[in-house]
Amino acid sequence: MPDCIFCKIVKGEIPSNKLYEDEQVLAFLDIGPLSEGHSLVIPKDHFERFDQCPPDTLAKVIAAANKLAKAVAAATECDGYNVLCNTGRAAGQAVDHVHFHIIPRNQGDGLFDGWPAGEYEPGKAEKVADTIRKNL
Amino acid sequence: MPDCIFCKIVKGEIPSNKLYEDEQVLAFLDIGPLSEGHSLVIPKDHFERFDQCPPDTLAKVIAAANKLAKAVAAATECDGYNVLCNTGRAAGQAVDHVHFHIIPRNQGDGLFDGWPAGEYEPGKAEKVADTIRKNL
Ligand SMILES: [Zn+2]
Ligand SMILES: [Zn+2]
Repeated sequence: MPDCIFCKIVKGEIPSNKLYEDEQVLAFLDIGPLSEGHSLVIPKDHFERFDQCPPDTLAKVIAAANKLAKAVAAATECDGYNVLCNTGRAAGQAVDHVHFHIIPRNQGDGLFDGWPAGEYEPGKAEKVADTIRKNL
Repeated sequence: MPDCIFCKIVKGEIPSNKLYEDEQVLAFLDIGPLSEGHSLVIPKDHFERFDQCPPDTLAKVIAAANKLAKAVAAATECDGYNVLCNTGRAAGQAVDHVHFHIIPRNQGDGLFDGWPAGEYEPGKAEKVADTIRKNL
């Protein structure tokens, strides 16, 4: 996609701090890091959303993320990390080229601290599950 | 793992609202949902952390997540969703059996609203990238 900044990074038209590269996958530092070592892993081909990316491509991306997560954790000595793929503006996707964040986390860093778990009313979960299964 | 609640769900010793199942992967509704349709996708085999899970297994898990994300989005008519794998307590991992959340999101729902992007001082990003690459 001509106007996609991640496609431009893949083509080398925009510089990046590359971390890993193979035929199908590129990983580089996020320039707006939530923490030191915050990295992005993307397919080189342009797919807008997670659900538009073919499973074979996702397999390559997640294998690279797996490898990279170990390296990021070792390099930053973080206590943990999030692997996060936001899909759609409402979910925080800012660049419309599917990407996985690897976000190093440390005890008490205050990132994503809200986890307001709810509860289903009796019978509701079964209905929701049924609707999802019907859409599979 | 005898005391792992996700292993117990795989074995059917704890009930769950199953959404998808194949030889290696199980998906079910999160019982403490952040939003309606919040789902979990796990490998049936027990691996504690994302980086301990073999790439082949992750490939199966992410392929199932891909399929399920479409169904969850269609079923809930959400505006977007997060695919999230927390690794380590500091990152919010509450069950030590690797799992991917699919979290339906809607405009203005207020979930994960903080995204306090920082900036590297000049020269710092190159150093961080170098340290990560050395750990690959
Ligand atoms: Zn692109
Ligand atoms: Zn387990």
